[in-house]
Amino acid sequence: MAGRTKKEKLELVTQKIRPFPDFPSKGILFRDICPLLKDPEALTAAIDLFEEHVREAYPQVQQIVGLDARGFLFGPLLAQRLGVGFALVRKKGKLPGPTVSVAYTLEYGKAEVEIQADAVDPGQKVLLVDDLLATGGTLFAACELMKKQKAEVLGCLVVIELRDLNGLERLKPNSVFSLVQY
Amino acid sequence: MAGRTKKEKLELVTQKIRPFPDFPSKGILFRDICPLLKDPEALTAAIDLFEEHVREAYPQVQQIVGLDARGFLFGPLLAQRLGVGFALVRKKGKLPGPTVSVAYTLEYGKAEVEIQADAVDPGQKVLLVDDLLATGGTLFAACELMKKQKAEVLGCLVVIELRDLNGLERLKPNSVFSLVQY
Repeated sequence: MAGRTKKEKLELVTQKIRPFPDFPSKGILFRDICPLLKDPEALTAAIDLFEEHVREAYPQVQQIVGLDARGFLFGPLLAQRLGVGFALVRKKGKLPGPTVSVAYTLEYGKAEVEIQADAVDPGQKVLLVDDLLATGGTLFAACELMKKQKAEVLGCLVVIELRDLNGLERLKPNSVFSLVQY
Repeated sequence: MAGRTKKEKLELVTQKIRPFPDFPSKGILFRDICPLLKDPEALTAAIDLFEEHVREAYPQVQQIVGLDARGFLFGPLLAQRLGVGFALVRKKGKLPGPTVSVAYTLEYGKAEVEIQADAVDPGQKVLLVDDLLATGGTLFAACELMKKQKAEVLGCLVVIELRDLNGLERLKPNSVFSLVQY
């Protein structure tokens, strides 16, 4: 991939995100990342772009934290590139041993995210990874989890940002880096 | 990692799997892979071992198929090493567009796994990846999905095999390669 410019990599990634109207419900335009995963060069390009940004903006990062389930697709790839570990934020009840959780509200009802108590260390510099920033509810809850564990959130990384939903606002003062914006 | 023998890599991986008794319910000994993800060298070792096995046993592989959610932690890493694509098998209702699904029975009740109709191609040679082989119910359903789509399953790869639960038997004639057995 060394021969490709940043712009070419971004084009490769953007071409592999496809829209599906009315999924999961009427009026929602779903941005599907499955074609990106299916194309090894496009996936390499996405991880390249994340890696380049992190090495420039957050060279001090010590761990990548990924969100269940689509954050698991990108987080370990980035963590391995950077030579750091990967920690899992999961939906409540999936992780064994002592855990810490944070509840948050969804459009309808509530949800809870959880992390193992020893997943991140106090003072550790972490970056959160997910596929998508929509309203920012889950990423916000994950940032709260990090705060509870006294880890330092350097920022959040997502493949796609849906601008209309104001997730950036909700996550302030945490910053969010996205590859593609709609 | 070039300097490490296969045996040393396997030791690195094995040391990072920890047991939790009575999770998720009484009498179950849960094998936790979180420490493996947290240690970048151990995770590299696990992917090295998968890659070495695939290059020897299945050099003709054309795509990796990973199971929701912990198969997502390992599948894209292996796919990128091999230079092939990655397809997602998810729980019912998570994937947009035309999908194909297979129902299967759990200890209590039923579940359904799903794949996008264009996730794998007819005749494509695929390897299924998950974290764990227990009774083999989910992997069996995923193999059935591949059959429905006329893809050719070369085999299954898991980090951990729980021998007492006879998953190998259930998955026959498909073969399963595991890194660690209990």
